[in-house]
Amino acid sequence: MAEENRRFLLAERPTGPVDENTYDFVREEIPTIGDGEALVKVGWISIDPTNRTWIGEEPTYLPPVAIGEVMRGLGLGEVIESNNENFPVGATVQGLTGWQDYIVISDALPLMVIPPEVNAPPPALLGALGMTGCTAYFGMTEIAEPKEGETVVISAAAGAVGSVAGQIAKLKGARVVGIAGGPEKCAWIIDELGFDAAVDYKADDWRRQLKEATPNGIDVDFENVGGEIMEAVFARLNKDARVALCGLISGYNENEPPPGPRSFGNLLIQRVKLQGFIILDYYPRFGEAIRQLSEWMAEGKLKSEETVVEGFEELPNALNMLFAGRNTGKLVVQLD
Amino acid sequence: MAEENRRFLLAERPTGPVDENTYDFVREEIPTIGDGEALVKVGWISIDPTNRTWIGEEPTYLPPVAIGEVMRGLGLGEVIESNNENFPVGATVQGLTGWQDYIVISDALPLMVIPPEVNAPPPALLGALGMTGCTAYFGMTEIAEPKEGETVVISAAAGAVGSVAGQIAKLKGARVVGIAGGPEKCAWIIDELGFDAAVDYKADDWRRQLKEATPNGIDVDFENVGGEIMEAVFARLNKDARVALCGLISGYNENEPPPGPRSFGNLLIQRVKLQGFIILDYYPRFGEAIRQLSEWMAEGKLKSEETVVEGFEELPNALNMLFAGRNTGKLVVQLD
Repeated sequence: MAEENRRFLLAERPTGPVDENTYDFVREEIPTIGDGEALVKVGWISIDPTNRTWIGEEPTYLPPVAIGEVMRGLGLGEVIESNNENFPVGATVQGLTGWQDYIVISDALPLMVIPPEVNAPPPALLGALGMTGCTAYFGMTEIAEPKEGETVVISAAAGAVGSVAGQIAKLKGARVVGIAGGPEKCAWIIDELGFDAAVDYKADDWRRQLKEATPNGIDVDFENVGGEIMEAVFARLNKDARVALCGLISGYNENEPPPGPRSFGNLLIQRVKLQGFIILDYYPRFGEAIRQLSEWMAEGKLKSEETVVEGFEELPNALNMLFAGRNTGKLVVQLD
Repeated sequence: MAEENRRFLLAERPTGPVDENTYDFVREEIPTIGDGEALVKVGWISIDPTNRTWIGEEPTYLPPVAIGEVMRGLGLGEVIESNNENFPVGATVQGLTGWQDYIVISDALPLMVIPPEVNAPPPALLGALGMTGCTAYFGMTEIAEPKEGETVVISAAAGAVGSVAGQIAKLKGARVVGIAGGPEKCAWIIDELGFDAAVDYKADDWRRQLKEATPNGIDVDFENVGGEIMEAVFARLNKDARVALCGLISGYNENEPPPGPRSFGNLLIQRVKLQGFIILDYYPRFGEAIRQLSEWMAEGKLKSEETVVEGFEELPNALNMLFAGRNTGKLVVQLD
């Protein structure tokens, strides 16, 4: 156990990728707990595109992290001291722990307790069986609703959410096309995850690849990226298509919002339903998703993949890795 | 009755507004009818933004009008000869008559018969009690679904669809803000139609006006225009807002699609539901809408306004009037 509480505090708002000036790395004393509180030792931190949106000037769906405040982040840990029976010592908990070794929780500032019967390694609990899996699950089953034989396109398809979303669409009987960066990821989503086709957005001919991979147009866009890829996908949407608007990672490191899609008019012509969603809204229903995802995983119908970075100090670098696409599946940092 | 059949045939696809080269004006013989056919004398033509989208290169929700073909348009007429009991002599009919004095109809190429009990002047039958009214009705009641006290913004609010849509939103108890061009139209939607506020998009300070008129943000965007006005509206959408995407008139005269909205990301952050719709999809349910609209009109809860242009030859000019915003309410052409 660390003898101190390492923390990354927000020092300044980055204008592009985070860098050495973005955070102050501090070592503080391990906090003590009072009545009704419990102490959590954080073991793993989830690295997500939305992390970057939390340190801009503008409020998004959450207020921006304040200067001097610990960096917000999703983590997984263990209760090591407790004055609260809802959080017994030894329990595995998950939630917004922040980028730090220790956090004090209570009924007012809770983390979710993982039921003991959910038996999976920590990276999977933050990935396919965590908020990431829930994002793919609700976005695909409640918004995108692919029907058998329809064509589903998934951007950032080798990423944490995309890789799960695509497998769910396959389980629903759709033809699934993933957009990913580089031949290795493209091969991986086809060979390992069972996607029907892949488009390498780093290749010069990605537009031609997209066209060839979707000869009957596109019925569902599970959108994680935005920018010119989304623009090209929108242009190929069929009548009554659905867009599950999950993320727009291509713009998160930019200071100015990127241009909107020039193919926006196709949303009208094709009577498209587009729905933006934030997974925190589904929090009360996470149990339902995790049960289904666990069942699929146990049956071998859903594969989970993680990229693990080791070392607390690597947290800021890991965030940049994500934006550079240097991960496959879920990206997590193991703190010690 | 005209002794000949005047017609506007598409001669070339315009690159901006239609001009004197866009159509060939021809005079042909009045067609004769065979078994199962009926002859309609067209009296009124509806001028709609979508007319312009039908003469571009690209298919939209309908194939483009072919070169040499009569210009597609919605019209109202009377059956003057008939070999088909579904279309008795004297019946008032409405549908895609095209820009011509006469059309032959049949069960295979029908027009909708207006029930004799619907007793309204022809411009209203093409306007608030026609496809225009149906567009406002279904877009507002089935997609936008304003709740009491919510803020609804309507672009092209003094236009045919917008003026009806805003009145329906008022009937639902919403706070209704209309965006219109010039002080006269802005006064008209407030004083005559009962809107709560107006934004003059021709004024330099329209962005400030929009902000002041929507102090609690925007819950519903009934979108008819697109472009930078839509971009500004999107930026002010509240959590769980709805966008009824009805039209994008600002781009219809352009050769290249306009930039998409830079505020597109707000659709994600605010969990917005956006739905594109084309009124022809609701055709089987027009009766339901027209009954309700007629009832509201009879009760004095819904006002209908039309701008009437006289003379067949004015059809192309009338289309440009629409794009210049030189109409209030429904724009129709009376052929003779």
